Amino acid sequence: MDLSGVSLIGDQAGSTGQDVFRGINPQTGASLEPAFYPATATELEQATALAQEASPVFAALDGVTRAKLLRRIADGLTEEGAAIVERAHLESGLPLPRLQGELGRTTGQLKLFADVLEEGSWVDARIDEALPERKPLPRSDIRSMLRPLGPVAVFGASNFPLAFSVAGGDTASALAAGNPVIVKAHPAHPGTSEIVGQVIQKAIQESGLPAGIFSLLFDSGIEVGVALVKHPQIKAVAFTGSALGGQALMRLAAARPEPIPCYAEMGSTNPLFILPGALRERGASLAQGLQGSFTLGSGQFCTKPGVVFVPDSGSESFVESLSGGVASLGGHQMLTNGIAAKYGNAIEQRVSEGKAQLLACAQSLPDNGGAVGAPAIFSVSLEQFMQHPELSEEVFGPTTLLVHYGAEKDLLAAATSLHGHLTATIHGTDEDLAQAQELVAVLETKVGRILFNGYPTGVEVCHAMVHGGPFPATSDGRSTSVGTQAMLRFTRPVCYQDFPNEALPGELRRENVSGIMRLVNGNLTRVAQS
Amino acid sequence: MDLSGVSLIGDQAGSTGQDVFRGINPQTGASLEPAFYPATATELEQATALAQEASPVFAALDGVTRAKLLRRIADGLTEEGAAIVERAHLESGLPLPRLQGELGRTTGQLKLFADVLEEGSWVDARIDEALPERKPLPRSDIRSMLRPLGPVAVFGASNFPLAFSVAGGDTASALAAGNPVIVKAHPAHPGTSEIVGQVIQKAIQESGLPAGIFSLLFDSGIEVGVALVKHPQIKAVAFTGSALGGQALMRLAAARPEPIPCYAEMGSTNPLFILPGALRERGASLAQGLQGSFTLGSGQFCTKPGVVFVPDSGSESFVESLSGGVASLGGHQMLTNGIAAKYGNAIEQRVSEGKAQLLACAQSLPDNGGAVGAPAIFSVSLEQFMQHPELSEEVFGPTTLLVHYGAEKDLLAAATSLHGHLTATIHGTDEDLAQAQELVAVLETKVGRILFNGYPTGVEVCHAMVHGGPFPATSDGRSTSVGTQAMLRFTRPVCYQDFPNEALPGELRRENVSGIMRLVNGNLTRVAQS
Repeated sequence: MDLSGVSLIGDQAGSTGQDVFRGINPQTGASLEPAFYPATATELEQATALAQEASPVFAALDGVTRAKLLRRIADGLTEEGAAIVERAHLESGLPLPRLQGELGRTTGQLKLFADVLEEGSWVDARIDEALPERKPLPRSDIRSMLRPLGPVAVFGASNFPLAFSVAGGDTASALAAGNPVIVKAHPAHPGTSEIVGQVIQKAIQESGLPAGIFSLLFDSGIEVGVALVKHPQIKAVAFTGSALGGQALMRLAAARPEPIPCYAEMGSTNPLFILPGALRERGASLAQGLQGSFTLGSGQFCTKPGVVFVPDSGSESFVESLSGGVASLGGHQMLTNGIAAKYGNAIEQRVSEGKAQLLACAQSLPDNGGAVGAPAIFSVSLEQFMQHPELSEEVFGPTTLLVHYGAEKDLLAAATSLHGHLTATIHGTDEDLAQAQELVAVLETKVGRILFNGYPTGVEVCHAMVHGGPFPATSDGRSTSVGTQAMLRFTRPVCYQDFPNEALPGELRRENVSGIMRLVNGNLTRVAQS
Repeated sequence: MDLSGVSLIGDQAGSTGQDVFRGINPQTGASLEPAFYPATATELEQATALAQEASPVFAALDGVTRAKLLRRIADGLTEEGAAIVERAHLESGLPLPRLQGELGRTTGQLKLFADVLEEGSWVDARIDEALPERKPLPRSDIRSMLRPLGPVAVFGASNFPLAFSVAGGDTASALAAGNPVIVKAHPAHPGTSEIVGQVIQKAIQESGLPAGIFSLLFDSGIEVGVALVKHPQIKAVAFTGSALGGQALMRLAAARPEPIPCYAEMGSTNPLFILPGALRERGASLAQGLQGSFTLGSGQFCTKPGVVFVPDSGSESFVESLSGGVASLGGHQMLTNGIAAKYGNAIEQRVSEGKAQLLACAQSLPDNGGAVGAPAIFSVSLEQFMQHPELSEEVFGPTTLLVHYGAEKDLLAAATSLHGHLTATIHGTDEDLAQAQELVAVLETKVGRILFNGYPTGVEVCHAMVHGGPFPATSDGRSTSVGTQAMLRFTRPVCYQDFPNEALPGELRRENVSGIMRLVNGNLTRVAQS
């Protein structure tokens, strides 16, 4: 596919102009061709008008038809896989095998949503049959199911140029639930975004669906994104990125004349708790596993374990082994020069402020114009950690902080003091865990996912996954942005009272042609009404 | 039960003080004994601290135990029924039969939530089994279910002193989902609130549960409510009342250092569409039904039809019949002097501004110190209605507005221009409805419940009910405050990865002792894992 550099407005091409930006190769610092053109205000109006027009048409489609669209997009991404991965590698510096894996994850999640649509029960169909003889008052026939919200604004993320970008989890789940999508492309990978956007555009066209179901807007700054979130036709927002960006969008969404749901996944420090039994039994493998996890993807994962609670007693060889491992590492390729610079500054600040002690640092590479970060590991006492809440804030990149604790009851106090995170991890023996019930109970209120004897990096796309957590990890702790429950974010229940059977959506008709699971008079059943 | 006039802080009594307020009998304007004392800042701290302490204990209970508490509260309300209804009548002026019905609804909804807890499938248990042999990477064992949010602040409503107040739908659904509740009593019915609060307090005590699960705070102003919503231990807010009050709470909840979900049901005008066929076939019965609906409970229902679209052509006798009916009515007892005064002013303003034409008005009663409102009906052309969006704003009381339309396509434009409402109603023949598919598609995006040939007043408590709708009808159009789906508001999914079986919540263990429906590897089943 040729790159045009212009936005995709439904099935139309956006305009070029004076104002341009380019992707940058973070391995060399070199600009990449072609030039990209920010969407104009007119283009944004066109995209939202098309989305609004397409909205009832798309909402009225049955799930099987929407599933076909998702499968067509997945097939298109596979067909264009080589071009997508190659361009994503140029724009992000991420290794090719990682990007190939990420592409598989992206197509896999589209197909998983298609599975859910084809099965159909996800709509939570509920039927309370009329009771015309009830005294003192008869009961009406009352039915409800989940319906789409309307056009969704999706912001591509820098750290997953495929799985959390143009055809990523937010787009897939919003489309699956029947909502048109307008993507604001991340400026760090505009070329990747355009190729993927063209695949979606083509799939919609080949499906004979309204072009307004999808648009892709470019911008190097925040202007287009802000206008999009404020636009009255937009009914929900999905974002993955920094706390700064996410919180700005939350404020915009809440301050609209009509406030709308804003799902911002803003990352976290993902506390990891090493309990005494685990340290005794497998300290060396824990050191190795932890190093692998916090440096994976150069530490640029929202689920990177950034705070690690370690027992004071008996941790010497664990700390030594981890420090030695980190000192032997080289510089790590980062996604952008901006991210690399921010990471470097954060590490320098942590060293100079002296609130935590630098245990080990990788040797930095000479400056060749590329974006490089040096892995680093710090330590602090639990008391100091509790005194400096800023130490629990995310540093995006390959670093982590060991927090040494004495008694396990202090650990409970530390857990209670945590704000929201995406994940928490407990490493322990079964006996450790049996004694840590209170800790688990506290962590349940702090995170979306609790892991036992694992590492939080690597988020499985499945039905039970929760990639969410209370603020400030996300804007809405009742939601997940990964897994099939992500669809629920873009729905609301709608109730139909005393409708004739043929005027109801298919899922709510007496005959239950698709055989979906429904709650009929309080009983879950796939049986049609008699 | 004796009334003490003090707040209930867990199982402790709040303090008296200098500052007092009293309930007022709206039928006479007379003050009612005893005096009530606003909760102090210390009492609020105590209530939140107790709630926070009780939170993990309550969350860890199984559903059957929570169901027992709900049933005990329902039984207690039935036992104290005579005292509750008598006091509610004094404080609200609502007729005794209505209050007896409302008490039945209140106990009925507690028992319905108990049914749902006993069945157990509502937690949306999901299990994706480990795939240790999967290539290139094994899959972990991943399980999720809905868990409680933590302490919920509930604001009692003036217009349903039982069903939307201390033990009403918000409290019942928050408790059912496992959250402690702190109620801010509505100052218009403090005595009713105290009796009901004492019933809940006693039920908790007799169940051997932590007292902090429930507190009841009094205040005649907004101070206690504001402090409650801002309190860091409060994790969600539920409110039923005015747009002014609800929107203020929304802003407070969003502006907290940790923003929290705020469910405010703020009422609406509930557009009702009379299609030509229905007008031809049964204009007279429509006039009668509409009059009954908009004057029911003196028009003090959030679901009152406040805007009625009527065909221009052929509506003369319908309008005449309705006008005649309204003119023959007497003054209607209102809930409070404040509501009566506000209603009177709104009617006067509508008359004096002349944007709509007064068709008929009931004769007002002489001023005897009571709170009285005179039913009134207005009419306007569709063009005028579209030009004056303020005409679609709620007037709380026994009034409605007829909007005369010419072509059905104009009706579609009017529907498209509506903001969010709780309900919309279509009256038509089956042929009318078949031709109104576009109208239904638009209304789906505007309301929580669409009725066919019925009246929106009267909200059934059942599984499929949606009493919600997009802003400004509610703060969160993804939710309902009536029916068993209301529980979902106070939950979030939590995911457990690679947990030993015995460390999991019961609903997620292999053996599925309760036989609940679970999504296992994408398949809904009640079968235990092998």
